[in-house]
Amino acid sequence: MADSLNCDLKSLSPLQLFERVTEQGEKVRALKAGKAPKDEIDAAVRMLLSLKLSYKTTTGQDYQAGLPPKDLVLINNGTTKEEDEDLVDPWNVQTSNAKGVDYDKLIVRFGSSKIDTDLINRIERAIGQKPHHFLRRGIFFSHRDMDQVLDAYENKKPFYLYTGRGPSSQAMHVGHLIPFMFTKWLQEVFDVPLVIQLTDDEKYLWKDMTVEKAYEYARENAKDIIACGFDVNKTFIFSDLDYLGTSAGFYKNIVKVQKHVTFNQVKGIFGFTDSDCIGKISFPAIQAAPSFSSSFPQIFNGKENIQCLIPCAIDQDPYFRMTRDVAPRIGQPKPALLHSVFFPALQGAQTKMSASDPNSSIFLTDTPKQIKTKINKHAFSGGRDTIEEHRKYGGNCDVDVSFMYLTFFLEDDDRLEQLKQAYTSGELLTGELKKVLIETMQPLVAAHQERRKQVTDEIVKQFMTPRKLAFEF
Amino acid sequence: MADSLNCDLKSLSPLQLFERVTEQGEKVRALKAGKAPKDEIDAAVRMLLSLKLSYKTTTGQDYQAGLPPKDLVLINNGTTKEEDEDLVDPWNVQTSNAKGVDYDKLIVRFGSSKIDTDLINRIERAIGQKPHHFLRRGIFFSHRDMDQVLDAYENKKPFYLYTGRGPSSQAMHVGHLIPFMFTKWLQEVFDVPLVIQLTDDEKYLWKDMTVEKAYEYARENAKDIIACGFDVNKTFIFSDLDYLGTSAGFYKNIVKVQKHVTFNQVKGIFGFTDSDCIGKISFPAIQAAPSFSSSFPQIFNGKENIQCLIPCAIDQDPYFRMTRDVAPRIGQPKPALLHSVFFPALQGAQTKMSASDPNSSIFLTDTPKQIKTKINKHAFSGGRDTIEEHRKYGGNCDVDVSFMYLTFFLEDDDRLEQLKQAYTSGELLTGELKKVLIETMQPLVAAHQERRKQVTDEIVKQFMTPRKLAFEF
Repeated sequence: MADSLNCDLKSLSPLQLFERVTEQGEKVRALKAGKAPKDEIDAAVRMLLSLKLSYKTTTGQDYQAGLPPKDLVLINNGTTKEEDEDLVDPWNVQTSNAKGVDYDKLIVRFGSSKIDTDLINRIERAIGQKPHHFLRRGIFFSHRDMDQVLDAYENKKPFYLYTGRGPSSQAMHVGHLIPFMFTKWLQEVFDVPLVIQLTDDEKYLWKDMTVEKAYEYARENAKDIIACGFDVNKTFIFSDLDYLGTSAGFYKNIVKVQKHVTFNQVKGIFGFTDSDCIGKISFPAIQAAPSFSSSFPQIFNGKENIQCLIPCAIDQDPYFRMTRDVAPRIGQPKPALLHSVFFPALQGAQTKMSASDPNSSIFLTDTPKQIKTKINKHAFSGGRDTIEEHRKYGGNCDVDVSFMYLTFFLEDDDRLEQLKQAYTSGELLTGELKKVLIETMQPLVAAHQERRKQVTDEIVKQFMTPRKLAFEF
Repeated sequence: MADSLNCDLKSLSPLQLFERVTEQGEKVRALKAGKAPKDEIDAAVRMLLSLKLSYKTTTGQDYQAGLPPKDLVLINNGTTKEEDEDLVDPWNVQTSNAKGVDYDKLIVRFGSSKIDTDLINRIERAIGQKPHHFLRRGIFFSHRDMDQVLDAYENKKPFYLYTGRGPSSQAMHVGHLIPFMFTKWLQEVFDVPLVIQLTDDEKYLWKDMTVEKAYEYARENAKDIIACGFDVNKTFIFSDLDYLGTSAGFYKNIVKVQKHVTFNQVKGIFGFTDSDCIGKISFPAIQAAPSFSSSFPQIFNGKENIQCLIPCAIDQDPYFRMTRDVAPRIGQPKPALLHSVFFPALQGAQTKMSASDPNSSIFLTDTPKQIKTKINKHAFSGGRDTIEEHRKYGGNCDVDVSFMYLTFFLEDDDRLEQLKQAYTSGELLTGELKKVLIETMQPLVAAHQERRKQVTDEIVKQFMTPRKLAFEF
């Protein structure tokens, strides 16, 4: 019986299992209170223990009364030691593995699909050019329904891009550019409208910050985003605090999502508690709503059914799994997704980048000298302890942060492959590899700074004004 | 010691008491688990029992782990029988007393102040005319900080009025007019701006209704409100679904309130559960935000500190207690309030009016014949069973719905007093009293219908367009 039970239980979600355990606990208490026969109580207790075991196996956590499971938070990294588990949610990314999070496990756990060679080839055929190196190198590694987007594109049906950023401080680092660089490429090859959400309301809710400050950060961050080279005729950037008060469609979609998601659900997905403010609890609907074209009546002429494609880092997926769950219930198409890996901190791939630690990455405001010093001083090396050992055994590109950064920013595939071989064989020393990275990053950041200088308040205003874009709907 | 403890506990709110009980329970469990000395455990258990007793005394409910108290929901009506308790929250009003809810108890329980003769006299001096019969007759019976509003008025400082309605169906009944009739009078005597919120988003969230339908009801209800005679130059009526997308200030105030209210708090105040949708959970912030003048920058020129006065039925008070709690924490003045009693159903004062039962009240769409039939057939009578008994013992105005309705709608004090004496003495029969009510309501409803016919879609649009009003700020 235990076996067939466990078999049944395997199909249950953590929340469903949690509810089964709770129910069974109540049953046991009722039997005891009603002084039921001992064998009946014993059977109920055995069932309870079995359910608790299934709960622990599925979630990696002990059952605790009143504390529903956090959806998908713990990713077991292949060993049974607790400290080896990856933690991934919109506010935390932690792994003890120097190679970073185990993304294959994440795909299984999140229920998304791997971006495989077939899909990359199909994209190449559709757009008639070589796919972006972020695709070729597995930096965008996971997707949901990208096939549907390509179906639509091949059948000349419209779709649009949606991405975003939480403007938590004025300074952005190079890792923040990844989704925008990729989104810009997507927009160019598919020639589609793009909306970029700046969640200044989220930052106000989560941080010790005024509404005014959050909005100011949004506008400052917009300058860095615009400096990536977006086309003002095809791109709408909006701050939530601003756009919510100017859009006829946005709030209507927010309230529709809010009607179809319960506190139990956001508790399970995002780990909210009863002590969290009601702003945090309802915020996921605000990140969901731009997935529906009717949030932008000025762009889509009020049309409701236009497919959305969201390029984002994988930690944002919980928002959009929730959105995809709600979409059919409010008569909207599910947004498709392209997920990127996390950008590693200079100190190693164990943690996600942090804008609050100036040494954890290269910032878009850094001088060439700062870039050089940071890389030389802080970039975690996969090289050996001595030159002799390095020459003999070679370096380890899998954990070397300089090499990881080059996979993001060095576009030349042949050069990257040469560097990998030379470093792995021991021919190339850590200092030499760092020099390549410095020479790659210095002009990249300088060029960004140059473009950013051109972005006037007037240009920001143009991007952030709700308006029709250069597309007919 | 128990005495001094109970004395301390009296100053605690139900939620604070709940938390004290929970803490103490945990302490007892920890002592037991740690095998502490018996006398220490016993002392902790005694303290726990004492705290539970205080909790029960304060809330009228047994402590239940994990279930924080519902603020103010149960009003004991003077007896100890459970079925005699009044239930009052924004969605339910129930009492088993034919006289209706015990409002004096409600004032104590809600912590508001009675509108006494002194306050009525002060209002009379301030405005230089006789106060409205709703004040003179105790229909508006409770307030918060009305003295402050009068201070401001006497010092020539501005204030504004805010009231609202949840547009749940096209048909409004005469009871729905009470807050609007009174608000119109307030606006005229104080000459101040008025904002009227139509919570179509709330109705969408709570009912089985589309966004479009809720908005349609809002516009239809606006016609009945406008027909009360509001001045378009001094009044702004708004639908949440509409105004949220057109106001630069409204959402900012909503998100500020949402940051300062936790799920625990709305659970305590409104009785929300984990199964409620996140829209309901965050909605109270949307009803709170119009209490702050910066939600209407077009009216108040962006000024943040203008005092708000809210006339409403007492069941809406939970929203505004929450608002008053948040206001100082977001640098805003607390709104003042004037509370009305509930309008009785034709069948008796035990329940609040229901727009879904056509026979429960007189609707604004009723014909003279329907009004006559409804009153004759359904109005609960405080008369005696036979004419002979009635002549001998007299009728009971305290439970007679026709008489109650006349206190709302018959403005002539002398006439009302005559009717009361004649009915109480047995001189006036039930049928005769009903005839007076029919003759009062028929022209009142007909005149409303006549005025409503004049309210074109164009006029509704004028009222609902965000704009400057006839006041300088």
